Amino acid sequence: MNTRQLTELAQQLRVDSVRAAAAAGSGHPTSSMSAADLMAVLLARHFRYDFERPAHPGNDRFILSKGHASPLLYAAYKAAGAINETELLTFRKLGSRLEGHPTPRRLPWVETATGSLGQGLPVGVGIALAGKRLDHTGYRVWVMCGDSELAEGSVWEAAEHAGHEHLDNLIVMVDVNRLGQRGPTRHGHDLDAYARRFRAFDWHTLEIDGHDVEAIDRACTEAESTAGQPTVILARTFKGKGVGSVQNREGMHGKPLPDPEEAIAELGGVRNVQVEVEPPPAARTLHAVRGGHLDLPRYDLGDRVATRDAYGQALVALGNARGDVVAVDGEVGDSTRTELFAKGHPERYFECYIAEQLMVGVAVGLAARGWVPYASTFAAFLTRAHDFIRMASISGAGINLVGSHAGCAIGEDGPSQMGLEDLAMLRCVYGSTVLYPCDANQTARLVAAMAGLDGIRYLRTSRGDTPVIYGPTEEFPVGGSKVLRASAEDRLTVVAAGVTVHEALKAADALADQGIRVRVVDLYSVKPVDRATLREAAERTGCLLTVEDHHEQGGLGDAVLDAFTDGRPVPRLERLAVRTMPGSATPAEQLHAAGIDAESIAAVARQLVEHAVAS
Amino acid sequence: MNTRQLTELAQQLRVDSVRAAAAAGSGHPTSSMSAADLMAVLLARHFRYDFERPAHPGNDRFILSKGHASPLLYAAYKAAGAINETELLTFRKLGSRLEGHPTPRRLPWVETATGSLGQGLPVGVGIALAGKRLDHTGYRVWVMCGDSELAEGSVWEAAEHAGHEHLDNLIVMVDVNRLGQRGPTRHGHDLDAYARRFRAFDWHTLEIDGHDVEAIDRACTEAESTAGQPTVILARTFKGKGVGSVQNREGMHGKPLPDPEEAIAELGGVRNVQVEVEPPPAARTLHAVRGGHLDLPRYDLGDRVATRDAYGQALVALGNARGDVVAVDGEVGDSTRTELFAKGHPERYFECYIAEQLMVGVAVGLAARGWVPYASTFAAFLTRAHDFIRMASISGAGINLVGSHAGCAIGEDGPSQMGLEDLAMLRCVYGSTVLYPCDANQTARLVAAMAGLDGIRYLRTSRGDTPVIYGPTEEFPVGGSKVLRASAEDRLTVVAAGVTVHEALKAADALADQGIRVRVVDLYSVKPVDRATLREAAERTGCLLTVEDHHEQGGLGDAVLDAFTDGRPVPRLERLAVRTMPGSATPAEQLHAAGIDAESIAAVARQLVEHAVAS
Repeated sequence: MNTRQLTELAQQLRVDSVRAAAAAGSGHPTSSMSAADLMAVLLARHFRYDFERPAHPGNDRFILSKGHASPLLYAAYKAAGAINETELLTFRKLGSRLEGHPTPRRLPWVETATGSLGQGLPVGVGIALAGKRLDHTGYRVWVMCGDSELAEGSVWEAAEHAGHEHLDNLIVMVDVNRLGQRGPTRHGHDLDAYARRFRAFDWHTLEIDGHDVEAIDRACTEAESTAGQPTVILARTFKGKGVGSVQNREGMHGKPLPDPEEAIAELGGVRNVQVEVEPPPAARTLHAVRGGHLDLPRYDLGDRVATRDAYGQALVALGNARGDVVAVDGEVGDSTRTELFAKGHPERYFECYIAEQLMVGVAVGLAARGWVPYASTFAAFLTRAHDFIRMASISGAGINLVGSHAGCAIGEDGPSQMGLEDLAMLRCVYGSTVLYPCDANQTARLVAAMAGLDGIRYLRTSRGDTPVIYGPTEEFPVGGSKVLRASAEDRLTVVAAGVTVHEALKAADALADQGIRVRVVDLYSVKPVDRATLREAAERTGCLLTVEDHHEQGGLGDAVLDAFTDGRPVPRLERLAVRTMPGSATPAEQLHAAGIDAESIAAVARQLVEHAVAS
Repeated sequence: MNTRQLTELAQQLRVDSVRAAAAAGSGHPTSSMSAADLMAVLLARHFRYDFERPAHPGNDRFILSKGHASPLLYAAYKAAGAINETELLTFRKLGSRLEGHPTPRRLPWVETATGSLGQGLPVGVGIALAGKRLDHTGYRVWVMCGDSELAEGSVWEAAEHAGHEHLDNLIVMVDVNRLGQRGPTRHGHDLDAYARRFRAFDWHTLEIDGHDVEAIDRACTEAESTAGQPTVILARTFKGKGVGSVQNREGMHGKPLPDPEEAIAELGGVRNVQVEVEPPPAARTLHAVRGGHLDLPRYDLGDRVATRDAYGQALVALGNARGDVVAVDGEVGDSTRTELFAKGHPERYFECYIAEQLMVGVAVGLAARGWVPYASTFAAFLTRAHDFIRMASISGAGINLVGSHAGCAIGEDGPSQMGLEDLAMLRCVYGSTVLYPCDANQTARLVAAMAGLDGIRYLRTSRGDTPVIYGPTEEFPVGGSKVLRASAEDRLTVVAAGVTVHEALKAADALADQGIRVRVVDLYSVKPVDRATLREAAERTGCLLTVEDHHEQGGLGDAVLDAFTDGRPVPRLERLAVRTMPGSATPAEQLHAAGIDAESIAAVARQLVEHAVAS
């Protein structure tokens, strides 16, 4: 395409953006119009992609980090022949693939869901890392960012990492249109302010007029030939470019143009330019998955092993058996035990330093390329990545998250290091799986099982040693549970998971000595929950007592209630959880202070049983 | 203090750090030892503080962002005479004020809880903003960071903002000891790598030998006299400085020294140097709270008003009545409606741009100085600040959070913009209050009530207009609820909040037309929950049906169950919630697709009632 044709294409992208938003009655045409020239040049001259084979291993990858500019993306799909005119005008309508913000659940050409700003670059870093270190098929990763979103710290976590890792297969275009949602950005059209920041993070930077298609083309060419560092193209643009009534004006964010017909006329009318996007070079199939024998670690009954240790050891074994398993960590691998994987499979280990948003973004990027990531940090610090986890679920990304140092049982370090809200956070993620093992063999089995699940899978591990109570051949289906104590005389069921399983067993034994039999259920699968076993326990014993090392909202107790919220009769229920703010103390003191140790369980169980007799 | 005395003081801080960790059997002495010279010079020559009057309005403020180096902080308190020898050795023990990571809940000299890295600087920015724009008492804010934590994006959100706001009352010392938890940092001892980054963000930078007390002193003096920009002092240090067996060695993080006695001898033995910390200059009392009359907006019954509009209008009124109310926003004030406050009270409005971690950090900093912040963004994007909210609860900070655009009812924008996990996230925060109004008058009352509560208070607002159903004089106590439909023939209770209240009312009216009477409860106070009303409704109607525009985990349904998890008999329960991944659609289509609109409620209610008759 020559300059005139490129300009025509860009105008078409603007017109189609205006039309899509007008048809929808909502959307972000002005944010699309500022970036139309960037998109036109990328599509026509630089992007290598086969729209009929989005899984082609040689395809370049494109991420629209400013996901609200989705009309521009869909207009580009139309120009490339991937969607038609009719579909374009379904934008934002019920059932349409063309959602307000793009998601790979709907569209095969979308790498990751965007719409929460500052997430496209971290995910792009993950894909670029896959390209450099694992796939080796030569693809480039193009990320289009807005200027407003450069205020997000996650962008600088990613910028730091991309510079550090010399990701010269990563090219970022920033559509510096000066206007955020509610008004001017911090730096307006000061391109150099952004350039100084990226240069400081070891990026190659280019500053251009984002409406000059030849300048854009030269910048892309220079970026492609830049070796040893990522490139950012900072493009000075105008929001609403091309339509006088909205161009560069405040108050024009996120709404259809006031007079679409007039705007389309001003933009030169409807066109039907089609682009032949250059296909990728031939490339071998993605990473051959080595299908070796899975030889999980085996632990002897009665030994004391921390579940985090079992996690690290099982992950190494899984990595031996499967060539597609990779690990990501937030500079705490000595605590989470992913350091074992780092030693065993250094080529598949990704250190993200203390940047949890980056860590989850990288995991999502790796998963987008077909890898099976395990991302680990303290359970408490996964809260840092909550929005990334939320967006990953919208993407439908298959990632494994592992949170160590769960609960007050960590002891002296105190509340800042205690994961006491992770179960609530992860249970509430759409389509998630939440697992919480109590012993080493169970952990190893669940680590392997996670790899085969869909969506976000979470494993909660513990800092301290716990006794091995299951044999190495025991099975632990996801959605199951284990009844560890049961008799015909059970008068109560204690439901526990993780560290509280061991407290519950001690309590049950102490109560048995006093002639009170209670059932004990190990609810290692917190989501999905084993409704059948819980219902049977409720029917047989009449009363459930849940015990968890977590705040009382959204965790194990609420998971158990899930089994009874369908209008059926509900058993009597009580729950024990961490209801106070812990300080520093030993693990045993913490469990006692929180009222979730064996002594507390036994005392409450006794009251409940006696109350049932009295009433 | 002369150079020799400063050096002695620094050695004492090291010795006391070693002693505290040895007595505890855990802790981070090596991370304390690297920063001992920085702390000694700060304490003896630059910090202006009255330890007997921590609330003194002229006091400088100090934040140990690398909170794991708490032994150093406590050693400094001892040197300043704030704690004694005996207390120092209670470090990390049950009941001690000297927790593993410092918190203001325990110690009056701590500004904010640290221990999750990368949070000290954003909170420091909040305090520095208070100092510059509100308090005007001339205090400085000193933040001590580790080098590892500079990988956190939140640090760069704060660096960007501090540079942009010309916070020359903010001085950061970075203890560049080269070693993170599990090994070397990205940049090791390359001070210039950090300096380039901070300079790019418009900071004044100084690079020094962090063990040269005179160099530290000169740097502090230069920082104090730097006008128009914040200063970062990048100090090259050695982890474990002064003890050969651990100094600058990997694998020595977060554990007592192997031979404390020998280490203390190598450091020159136990000392008892006392520092006379310079008191602050006389300063007027903090911000006089203007105690004006609260004239909340009043809305007419039957009008249609979005609760986010009522929030914005009520916040302006609250700002008129109270001079201590301030607002913070993440560049979406036109959506959250804090733009009204920005117009009405520009001097008390803090724009944080799209940086939600910074936004909450700033709110925590403002609260630490006695201001009453309301921090607002989309409910979905508050997940970005989850870890900051968690840490704020550990601080015991009193902050108001307001999340707009809750639920699938926002319509076409799609799932990335929908808050569907905010209730679960905020309910699980220790000591939090969670409010979810359904009409404008209720919103206004709750906005005012929030200001007087302790801890984290959350208000959930909606995008679309809803009918005004309460009069302007109605009272809405926190912990209460409203029974909107009730009769002696009620056969079911529908519990709703926010948009689903209106759907529930429509359903109840439709059912009444068919001869089925159901009770309707508006559970505007999601936490604490109105147990008495819920229990009475359960007793009278036998069955509860909860309806929420939120995922089914951790939200309204679980809040209702809280009223019944104490071993009492439980009613029959069913809940309706958003169980699928929404796409784009109109608000009405979204509610219907999620099964939480009037039609869905009526259908399920009918089934439940008929089932009860049949069984």
